[in-house]
Parts: sequence; structure tokens; C-alpha cells
Amino acid sequence: MAAVEFIKDLCTPALIIDLDKMTRNAEGMLERFHKLGVQLRPHMKTHKTLECAEIMTGGSRRCIVVSTLAEVSFYADNGYDDILYAYPLPFDKVERCAELSERLSLFHVVVDNRLALQELKKRPLKQGKVWKVWMKLDCDNGRAGVPHCDPAALQLALEIWDTSGVELMGIYAHCGNTYACQGEEQIKAVAQETTTIVLQFMEKLKAAGIQGVKSSIGSTPSCSHPVPDMAMLSEVHPGNYIFYDVQQSLIGSCTLEDVAVRVLTRVIGHYPHRNQLLVDCGWTALSHDGGGRLPTGYAIIEGHPELKLLSMTQEHGRVEPISGKLDFKQFPLGSLLKLIPYHACATAMMHPVYFVHSKGKIVDTWKPTRGWQVTVRNLP
Amino acid sequence: MAAVEFIKDLCTPALIIDLDKMTRNAEGMLERFHKLGVQLRPHMKTHKTLECAEIMTGGSRRCIVVSTLAEVSFYADNGYDDILYAYPLPFDKVERCAELSERLSLFHVVVDNRLALQELKKRPLKQGKVWKVWMKLDCDNGRAGVPHCDPAALQLALEIWDTSGVELMGIYAHCGNTYACQGEEQIKAVAQETTTIVLQFMEKLKAAGIQGVKSSIGSTPSCSHPVPDMAMLSEVHPGNYIFYDVQQSLIGSCTLEDVAVRVLTRVIGHYPHRNQLLVDCGWTALSHDGGGRLPTGYAIIEGHPELKLLSMTQEHGRVEPISGKLDFKQFPLGSLLKLIPYHACATAMMHPVYFVHSKGKIVDTWKPTRGWQVTVRNLP
Repeated sequence: MAAVEFIKDLCTPALIIDLDKMTRNAEGMLERFHKLGVQLRPHMKTHKTLECAEIMTGGSRRCIVVSTLAEVSFYADNGYDDILYAYPLPFDKVERCAELSERLSLFHVVVDNRLALQELKKRPLKQGKVWKVWMKLDCDNGRAGVPHCDPAALQLALEIWDTSGVELMGIYAHCGNTYACQGEEQIKAVAQETTTIVLQFMEKLKAAGIQGVKSSIGSTPSCSHPVPDMAMLSEVHPGNYIFYDVQQSLIGSCTLEDVAVRVLTRVIGHYPHRNQLLVDCGWTALSHDGGGRLPTGYAIIEGHPELKLLSMTQEHGRVEPISGKLDFKQFPLGSLLKLIPYHACATAMMHPVYFVHSKGKIVDTWKPTRGWQVTVRNLP
Repeated sequence: MAAVEFIKDLCTPALIIDLDKMTRNAEGMLERFHKLGVQLRPHMKTHKTLECAEIMTGGSRRCIVVSTLAEVSFYADNGYDDILYAYPLPFDKVERCAELSERLSLFHVVVDNRLALQELKKRPLKQGKVWKVWMKLDCDNGRAGVPHCDPAALQLALEIWDTSGVELMGIYAHCGNTYACQGEEQIKAVAQETTTIVLQFMEKLKAAGIQGVKSSIGSTPSCSHPVPDMAMLSEVHPGNYIFYDVQQSLIGSCTLEDVAVRVLTRVIGHYPHRNQLLVDCGWTALSHDGGGRLPTGYAIIEGHPELKLLSMTQEHGRVEPISGKLDFKQFPLGSLLKLIPYHACATAMMHPVYFVHSKGKIVDTWKPTRGWQVTVRNLP
């Protein structure tokens, strides 16, 4: 790639990250949970880069959470350790998980059913190691996890606790239901509810003789506005906050000012007969996430609340005014627009390289890991 | 990646391509237009691989169309030539386009406005070369192109024709409006309409003294059901037909049997209390395209018309019956499901590697090119 000094000279579309905002978001989260005395275990899924991981872990390169085994390998191969693979143990990946458990000093897996536990038992770890297992609890989020009100939850925890070769590390809950919130008050209500459920479950464990087990909840909304009771948790695991996005600003996790990521795009066509511009950002550069549910369409066009990104095809975006006639002179062919994405995780996913800038000057390019296929590496 | 012999042993999610169906789709299109005496210029945007390009060009490695400059570079670097960059000339990429024009024996650009033509004039090509320019005509598709009924269309064509250092190669139209069709009859009506408009425009050109200029229309629906008048065109440029997808089957371009691509996924959770399965395919593996507008949700689950892919998060998909109680025994944890994507272009885009199989046996892995950034290569 030819060296480019300023974002204004980038070939578009391009994902640009404001290093200063991003660093502020990361440091803010570290500080918030340092003060609460709770371990932050940042999620890597939004960015999947080494550079963001470095900033999110405060340079420790320890204590992270990921959503794919490809990410585990990527971070493990680059000196990271204490990695939690926050995904219901997939039966096709048990051998790979075993190898990672044997290779890393701390590799955690998640189970939410008895069959998964049996899969672990079938593959005892070598080198005197034991499987580090978190049990996933569904605190009314409705995705993975044993429902917290189901007696099977305590039974499974006890079974993990009693299984040799397996160590019950903690109880893991994702409060994804915070994504339905609007505003700090609603976020705090869900954060409180999830925290209370998890803490009550920890009490049940204690009553059943299970001690020294950790607890972790997470989601960017709840961790952006933690309730005091979250200080009683062992860990939290948010991820999106590194970039934030329009969705998070609508939920109330952040302000639009905090959003560190943009898709840089250029005007490539003027079509006065239909009152529209074309830009060189289609769904390949932004994703379809959000489904056009904003008044401004698929994104917010920075500095132009009067415009709407109406529709996209693979490499084209149609822009028109929310109302009235478009002043085409304001948007010459070749001029730049910056799109604030609805969902940063989905938008970042579309880009093989991120351009990192400080006040418009490009300071770095970062390459995320992608996909799901992982090498089975020999032990060192 | 560990060598895997059968698709059933793949790590999921994975994009799998049926080589036999895909080859049939490609050869069918070649044969169809060979019979009509029209040059097929296949579009690479759906797959972006060398291997599909080889099959789609019948091994010639000539006469292709692409939608990004990264694709141009990828194919040019791998021995391809006669490449049409079917995109309204982006002003930030003129220098790169000039270099490609000087390097390749045939590199075509597309313009739909006078300013773009001026950009070309500002950068005369070296080595006695001239810019090869197609003018984009909007035949009621409503994306890029000069509207066919606008007198500016003929004016621009004349201006390109009269400009030294620039050669008017042809008139290019994308009949994307076929995507609103249902069934062969409607597709043929739009194909006829677009063909008629383009042929009438060619007559206008001839009347204005412009001779020897080509004409090209395209879209998978129209090229799957060409009307006889299309034999009077010089070229066609469909792309999606290499894979086809659920959307194309609903439009009527193909049958569901012709769809050559699947996302392979595994069951990772049973949640009887909400009558749902979880699968390890989220929007990172399928895309959000289609927006759940099928009765079966975001995809069709092969062999299971009774199931619906209800919703997805980054790495999880929720599956439930369209009605009634789910028989969980039919779908053990770890068992495989195959998702037929709504939009193959969008789904393929999410995968850094495609697994190619013949009757379930893996015969190859293909790697697509991604992104938009291109190296400025020195001339050979």
C-alpha cells in the first residue's frame, strides 16, 4: 500500500479509527472497574486486533475474552494468555480446545449443558492440567446458558464441581438484554437485575458447598453504567466500548462524541433527477446491520443530520436529504463523507485493515484476524 | 489448517461450495451466450477468487468485469486481462486506473458524467495508450448512469467520442431492476425493456455518426432468461449465477436445486424452555442480507422447511420451528445443518476461505480477495 499521511488522502471506502477517542474509551473502562475493584476482562470480538487488545488490557496481554477459536489462536500465537473462549463448547473443537488448554497457562471454556461436560471428560488434559470451565447462566437474555430459574443450573454447577479433571472457574452471564434499553436508568435496571441474579446464584453455590468460584457479567451498556452491586462480582467482560457506535449512543452507553470509528467514503455520482448522491460505500464496507432503522438510514453522516443513507448495494450507497432539495454544490464529486456506523462490530468485520489516525493524521494501520479456521499447532 | 477430507469434518461455520453445481451454472451461462453469439463478460464480485474466474471465463482468463480496484489488481497480478472496472470512475483512483491502463492490454473504465471525463483528460496515458471508456446508461434501474431519456446521455457519449486520448468502447447498463421481478415472465419483460432502450440508444449514436461502439447489459436474472433481442447486444455481464441463492430462486432466475453454496453450521445448544436451538452461525458467517424476509428467516435450512433461522448475533443463530414443538432428538448437539443463503454475494463476502466439495468430499479450498486498498505497482 502506498504510504498515505492523512485520512483525506485514503482510498475509499476505508475504516478509520480515532486513536485518541479509542484510547479514552479503553482507559475509561479500565479506570471504572479498577475503582470498583473488579477485574476487567475485555472482549476482543469487536476489533480482533493485537493493537486494540494491548490498549484494552492496559498492556498486560492477559485476561481477555473472545468469541471464536480463531481469535484464541491469534492471541495465543502473539503472546496473550488467560483467554476465555466465551462460547458454548462446540463439539467439533474439543481437541483444539484441549491443545490450547495444555499450551496456555490459562485457557477457559464455557459449558451450559451436561453433554458438553461429558465431552470434556472424554478428553482428559495432559501435563497434569485440568479443564478450566465457566458455566453459562442465562439471566433472561435468551441466548446461550442454563436459565437461572431452572434447577438444572445448580445441578450442572455441582456436576462440574464434582468432576475430576475439570475445575469450575466461575459463572458467566451476558446481559445482552441491555441492548433493548433506552437511557442510563433502564440500563442500570437490567445491570442490577443480572447482578442480583448472579450474586444470588453464587449464594446458592456457597450453600451447596461450592467456594472460591468467580462471577462475571458483561455487555457494553451495563459496564458503561455499572451499578454499585457490580463491585461484588469478580469480573466483567464488555467489548464494543472500544469503538462504541450509533446503537450504543441510542441505548445510552455513550454519547455520539465517544464513537471512535467511521467509514470514510467519497461522493461518486450526482443524480439531480432523483435528488440523490451516490457514495462509494455499500454493504461490503458498512454491513446491513441496523437495517435502516435510523431516521438517517443505515448510518449517521457526520456533520450532515439532514442527510439519509437510504439504501446500499454491494459497493454503492444512495444518499438523499431527509426532506427538501439536495444542494449538490455542497458535495462535489470526489468529496469525502464520514459515516458513523450503527453497529461497530458489524462494520469493523467488513474491513481487512483499519486506518488509525490522530486528528486526521494516519499513525498506524491495524490488521484484524478473520474467519473460523485454526491451525492445530504442535506443543512448544 | 489441518487437512480435512469431508465437509462433515469441517470446523464450523464454513462456506461450502458444490463444485458440480457451480460448474454447471458457469458452463450453462457460457453456452447460453455462445449460442446467442453474445460475448459473456462474467462479473467477479460474488466470489472474488481465481478459481471461479477460471471456470467462468472458460479458461480464457480474459473479458471479466469487477466492482473494486482491489479486484482489478488481484486479477491483473494473476495473469488476467481485458478487465472492465464497472464503477463510476472514482476521482481518488484515477492515477491507479491510469497505471492499470498502461500495464494491461485492455483495462476499461466507466463514466457517467462530464467531470469524470475531465479527470481522464488531465491524466493522458503513456506509451501511446488511450483510456478505454464505457458510458453508463441508467435504464430505469436508478443507481449509477445517465438516465436514458436525458439528452445529456447522447451529449456525454458524443463528448467521449470526440475526446482525444479517450476511446468510447461501449454503452454499459445494469438491469438491477430485475431484482424486483417474480418469475421468468417479469424478468423477460425487464430484460426486453433494458435491451430495447440500449439498442435504441445505439441507433441514436449511429445517427450521430458514432460507429463500432459496443453495448452491454447484465444481471443474473436477465442473463438466466435472455430474450431473443439480447442477441443484438455485444456483451452481457452477470455474476451471481456462479453460486445462485435463495433470492435468485424467488426471482425466478434458477431453482433452489441450482444453488451451489451453503453455510455449514453445527447445533451448539438446546433450549427446550423456549423451543429453540442455537447454531454456530451468526451474522459474521451469513450476513444480515435478506433481513429475515423469508418465512424461514435469514436463510433456508436445507432439508428442514419446518425450521426458521429466527435471529442472529455475531456468532450465534437462533433456530425454531415455524410452528409447533421442536423435536430436539432430530438435532443432537454437534450435528450439522446446511443453510442456503438468501444472498450469496453477501454471505461469501464474510468468509476468508471457501471449501469446495464434490459430493461431500473436499477437493479444494479457495481464497477470495477482500477490501479496497491496492498497491501502486511499478510498470513491468
